[in-house]
Amino acid sequence: MTRPADHRGARPPALVVVGSIGLDTVETPTAHGRELLGGSVSYACACASFFARTGMVGIVGDDFPRRHLSLFRRLGIDLAGLRRQAGRTFRWSGVYESDMNRRRTRSTELNVFADFAPELPEHYRAAPFVFLANIAPALQLRVLDQMRRPRFVMADTMDLWIETARPELLEVVRRVDVLTVNDAEARHLTGRHSLPAAAMELRRRGPRHVLIKKGEHGSILFGPSGPFLMPAFPLETVRDPTGAGDSFAGGFMGSLAAGGRTTDAALRRAMAYGSVIASFVCESFSLDGVRRLTRSRIEERRRALRRMCRLP
Amino acid sequence: MTRPADHRGARPPALVVVGSIGLDTVETPTAHGRELLGGSVSYACACASFFARTGMVGIVGDDFPRRHLSLFRRLGIDLAGLRRQAGRTFRWSGVYESDMNRRRTRSTELNVFADFAPELPEHYRAAPFVFLANIAPALQLRVLDQMRRPRFVMADTMDLWIETARPELLEVVRRVDVLTVNDAEARHLTGRHSLPAAAMELRRRGPRHVLIKKGEHGSILFGPSGPFLMPAFPLETVRDPTGAGDSFAGGFMGSLAAGGRTTDAALRRAMAYGSVIASFVCESFSLDGVRRLTRSRIEERRRALRRMCRLP
Repeated sequence: MTRPADHRGARPPALVVVGSIGLDTVETPTAHGRELLGGSVSYACACASFFARTGMVGIVGDDFPRRHLSLFRRLGIDLAGLRRQAGRTFRWSGVYESDMNRRRTRSTELNVFADFAPELPEHYRAAPFVFLANIAPALQLRVLDQMRRPRFVMADTMDLWIETARPELLEVVRRVDVLTVNDAEARHLTGRHSLPAAAMELRRRGPRHVLIKKGEHGSILFGPSGPFLMPAFPLETVRDPTGAGDSFAGGFMGSLAAGGRTTDAALRRAMAYGSVIASFVCESFSLDGVRRLTRSRIEERRRALRRMCRLP
Repeated sequence: MTRPADHRGARPPALVVVGSIGLDTVETPTAHGRELLGGSVSYACACASFFARTGMVGIVGDDFPRRHLSLFRRLGIDLAGLRRQAGRTFRWSGVYESDMNRRRTRSTELNVFADFAPELPEHYRAAPFVFLANIAPALQLRVLDQMRRPRFVMADTMDLWIETARPELLEVVRRVDVLTVNDAEARHLTGRHSLPAAAMELRRRGPRHVLIKKGEHGSILFGPSGPFLMPAFPLETVRDPTGAGDSFAGGFMGSLAAGGRTTDAALRRAMAYGSVIASFVCESFSLDGVRRLTRSRIEERRRALRRMCRLP
């Protein structure tokens, strides 16, 4: 097992993200990709890296391809919190149905992820922004416990934890500023069908904001100044929606961490950045859509999205 | 059969709407309504009437309850084009599944609607705005042929006509300014899954604008200045979504007819009015949600919606 190198004196990242890193096998109605770079922390960090200095917390096996690490480095991601351990990397395989809004998991192999116990490098602990991407709530809490008074924390989750780790998940919910879930998870977690009602109930449990993702139908941020409705950027071609939610979250948190403010206007702008960067990700398999992405193409699409939403 | 009274010298309505009027039996997961006022022209005219003087074109049987006519009159709808004929009124019955986005038709009885051949009162023919709500394309064309150079025409349709009357439907498409369809119909009509791609193909067939409705996920107006993304007003309670699309269309066309302009800004504002009035309709069965509605409550909700969409 390799331990994180000594990073004493390193500059804290603006944003720390913890989650899974995996090799994904994805089948869509028109194409197929094997052993692609995937996992919530890969998507979120790659997308956040366009905006702010981002520190990754995760684990890979000794079979993890070097080219993926090179991509992370090229994007400027701080990898001090990424552990490499003997064994196989986490693997996931899934199939999309014809409408691309429904997918079925074929297999999940936890591998080295099975006994992951995140240990944060010292210089991560003072980071002001934290995104607890989708992993077991107990691990999310473990990361949160190692942070020194972060200013703004967002957590994601999934059905599995709603069913198997509800008490820990509710503890996470109590301790974050934003909970992000998709529409089905919001309903599952609260038993309320109406999204405004579900969001209200979740906000009563702690978080100031609830960000509900609706895939190609956009997202809604519920908070103290009412709901903010963010449509998805309309795409001609959706090649692979895997990681779209994590990418949205990465763009959202990266943009907030870059500006350092969490005002209503900053949150709305961050929603637009999340939407835009997720749209680039969906146009290609894995992270291919951000490999050659530039900040100026992001700004161009953000301006286009703003024009599409302008209500006189 | 009663013929329309003599309306020589009557003022032309700003908007003429043709479509079905029926008595609907609707079952939702939580409630049930029998023989409710329904049909595309009922919803569209009632909603348009809050904005502009609207003339109805339709047919009912001699069993059509007087109280429904009173509602139309109270809303100021011009009923010169509404025929009353011996026989039973059109009836439809449907069931909503738990997510309310899917419904199943239980039965359809055409009754007097079977041999409807719309005949426009003289004073309707100079109306500048026309909405051809969902009826057989041949009837939509028959109405269009009776109009004197309308300035702005919108048509709606449904899967049945895409399958059984495609040539006539494409003739309608060629002759209108806006085609409005839901997402499934846009895909069915073009064979394209992507909505931007489907809209582009439909626009090539004639209409300057294509308005795609996505139910609770809002709507998109595709036109020469690019797409305009209009989220739906988020509701705590959706009691009955029947007629939401027709209500949206009524609010949209009513608002345009009131202002008399079809600029990009006017179209965007009209989309917001459509969204707002459809939201009131969904909160109650049938047209109960507009029965006591006032223009000031519409404006209040429109301002709220604008706040929810504001992207700095």
